[in-house]
Amino acid sequence: MHLDLVSFSLPTFPLLASTSETVDSSLVLAGVLLSLLVSYLASKLGGELANRLGLPTVLGELIGGVIIGVSVLHLLVFPGEGIDASSSAIMRFLELTDGLSPAAANSVFEAQSEVISILAELGVIILLFEIGLESNLKDLMAVGIQAVVVACVGVVVPFVAGTAGLMIIFGLPAIPSIFAGAALTATSIGITSKVLSEMGKLNSKEGQIILGAAVIDDILGIIVLAVVASLAKDGAVDVGNVVYLIVSATGFLLGAIALGNLFNKAFVGVVNKLKTRGELIIPAFIFAFAMAYLADAIQLEAILGSFAAGLVLEETEKRKELQKLILPIADMLVPVFFVVVGSKTDLSVLNPAVPSNREGLIMATFLVTVAIIGKVVTGLSVFGIPQINRLAIGVGMIPRGEVGLVFLGIGSSIGILSKPLEAAIIVMVIVTTFLAPPLLKFVFPEQNTTQLKSVDSE
Amino acid sequence: MHLDLVSFSLPTFPLLASTSETVDSSLVLAGVLLSLLVSYLASKLGGELANRLGLPTVLGELIGGVIIGVSVLHLLVFPGEGIDASSSAIMRFLELTDGLSPAAANSVFEAQSEVISILAELGVIILLFEIGLESNLKDLMAVGIQAVVVACVGVVVPFVAGTAGLMIIFGLPAIPSIFAGAALTATSIGITSKVLSEMGKLNSKEGQIILGAAVIDDILGIIVLAVVASLAKDGAVDVGNVVYLIVSATGFLLGAIALGNLFNKAFVGVVNKLKTRGELIIPAFIFAFAMAYLADAIQLEAILGSFAAGLVLEETEKRKELQKLILPIADMLVPVFFVVVGSKTDLSVLNPAVPSNREGLIMATFLVTVAIIGKVVTGLSVFGIPQINRLAIGVGMIPRGEVGLVFLGIGSSIGILSKPLEAAIIVMVIVTTFLAPPLLKFVFPEQNTTQLKSVDSE
Repeated sequence: MHLDLVSFSLPTFPLLASTSETVDSSLVLAGVLLSLLVSYLASKLGGELANRLGLPTVLGELIGGVIIGVSVLHLLVFPGEGIDASSSAIMRFLELTDGLSPAAANSVFEAQSEVISILAELGVIILLFEIGLESNLKDLMAVGIQAVVVACVGVVVPFVAGTAGLMIIFGLPAIPSIFAGAALTATSIGITSKVLSEMGKLNSKEGQIILGAAVIDDILGIIVLAVVASLAKDGAVDVGNVVYLIVSATGFLLGAIALGNLFNKAFVGVVNKLKTRGELIIPAFIFAFAMAYLADAIQLEAILGSFAAGLVLEETEKRKELQKLILPIADMLVPVFFVVVGSKTDLSVLNPAVPSNREGLIMATFLVTVAIIGKVVTGLSVFGIPQINRLAIGVGMIPRGEVGLVFLGIGSSIGILSKPLEAAIIVMVIVTTFLAPPLLKFVFPEQNTTQLKSVDSE
Repeated sequence: MHLDLVSFSLPTFPLLASTSETVDSSLVLAGVLLSLLVSYLASKLGGELANRLGLPTVLGELIGGVIIGVSVLHLLVFPGEGIDASSSAIMRFLELTDGLSPAAANSVFEAQSEVISILAELGVIILLFEIGLESNLKDLMAVGIQAVVVACVGVVVPFVAGTAGLMIIFGLPAIPSIFAGAALTATSIGITSKVLSEMGKLNSKEGQIILGAAVIDDILGIIVLAVVASLAKDGAVDVGNVVYLIVSATGFLLGAIALGNLFNKAFVGVVNKLKTRGELIIPAFIFAFAMAYLADAIQLEAILGSFAAGLVLEETEKRKELQKLILPIADMLVPVFFVVVGSKTDLSVLNPAVPSNREGLIMATFLVTVAIIGKVVTGLSVFGIPQINRLAIGVGMIPRGEVGLVFLGIGSSIGILSKPLEAAIIVMVIVTTFLAPPLLKFVFPEQNTTQLKSVDSE
């Protein structure tokens, strides 16, 4: 009884530290505040610098994250192999200034990391909600077939080329080659959509194709993952699970679109009846979080749910008001996501002084080449739209981001990837993620956009 | 395996997650999304209902929290004595729908609870930042002496009356009586300021006195706590620590005010140079979180830091713009705080069927009486301002909120409080917290306000 009452005492009472065996919430709060502080400083410095250099802001935020993260300053690190509280500069700072005992440091570190990770996830959920609010379902549907083709080409080409190349050129066994090939299929919807949004190209035909293809790619990636993981584990494909994923993903997307038309009026009706603060944003978040949960629960990604929610609400008359309200919330949480992505990027795999890295870097060169070419060719598959910027579409599909690392994480946990291959996959993810934003900005200049007619969201 | 694999989801890099024994972040995210969902539903339903009944919204949010919390539905509960994952309806739901294994449930439950607790703390930090942005330092200073007197009277009267009454009427020993007396001294700045803000009375003379007195009360409460805790623990007062607290608190407040004047122009100058999204909100949060951390580090409360930051930024030309940006962020996070406060309120202490509750309820009647009268009389101490609503000031100081429970938590952990006395303190906190909002609205009608002349913040 006493303890939960104590933890009720949200605002920080250091006296409690010694008396409770649960984590001292005052110290966790201090850690979270410091983590947000360094994240904001890094994202703003990085973003502003990138902007001055004519690069996408998000690249600066990612690099800001790298600098405060595990590769350089160790201000923002996360528990993992070889990383505990003693690796975290913030924990050491709290030990010096805030009376954190070394014994309690690990539990405070873990709690703080959990909170920052979830804030980052909420950040990308809100980013995709905002992207959904800025997109238009009809425009997306208009380029739907092109998006499907781009997505499929972008999955098949890198997968086949990567797997075959690793087996033939590097003589690797089939299963690890298939795994690495699968890691090449993903597209990071977060990074691509953020760059497009920054460039004001989200509502160009190219932007809509990229966005649609990235969404479909995400779903395809989840299916590929399920296939490859069951293959690696049991030597056979769990057909039932694959069918379940395909059916649930299709059902979810079609359901969201169908629901959208029914839901629009009900949503506006409810919002208009509310009289207390947050009358629009809270119902919107209830919807977005419910969709995110639903997507998560049926084994899709939470961001697909919030994106669908944004698309549905974009159809309502509350669109513009909601876009305005979501802006500062996105400004607060989205940078946390990109900084966290950067901070978790371990650049030590690029160090050629480590022997396994050298072998890995050679494989990485191959994987990066396949990763880039395999996505750039997708632009060639776009048909029926003359004068479209095919190169921009291909380049927009390049960043693998966090999704590529999901494959790596699972491969590692099953224990089928060699150290050099692991390093190669990490390098491939890093290079594609960090290269895509400036490349996209370069190949997609202002005057080269085919604007859609129905764009009216700004 | 598949479940687990796919639920790996994204932004928390599974590369790390898979290799360490940390909690499955996809399930934590699912738990957090569901917790936010029920919190938003409860706060909106409660708030709207309260509004329709002419009661303060925040009371509805608190009661909404009680209903989804440990007292009724068990949707939002927090780890503690007798409470683990099996008590949480959300965890049971995740076991049913999301493949959460009972073995993993406790660690997911703990991680989810940590995240929601910190979101609630960020909520109250942002609430006080917003309150600071709506307040005016000069107006606060103008009623500074009155606020100090109100705060001191509101600490001394309940403390003396409560301690003496428990010793004389109930025959309790000195130390537990002093502890319970100390628990009577606090004022919950969060609840009072939110009600005033809702009523548009924050910038009335009464509102400014209440706000100023609540801030000073918070600091006095921390000092009282340090005195009482060391008294209970060692039988003697740790004079050094008390002096440290007094000096650091005074230094912090004066420092913030002094800094304010120097900092204003630098802040605006930096903001005007920034060119990427979040150019105002991110620097503002950097400042607010730094102040919150600083206040936390010198053993004050984080909310005092963010309040001071708000006051300082209120002096800048960016005030209005910042108020607009903070609005949706506060709407998103502040309700989480009040719902969490409600959800942690255990109404079972009000059940007279339990023998120790009966004795406790008698003591509680006494404590509630002292708690209310002891604060209401503070209004009488206001001098030099004719026609001021003295009753409103007294009533505004009534809610004990979470601060009262801190005393309880520490007393319990030292083991000096009997079960009935514990129950009595909880009842006192519950009654004052839930009674104050409607009472304040009742005694502080629209026409009875002495508006300050310099109010221009809306």
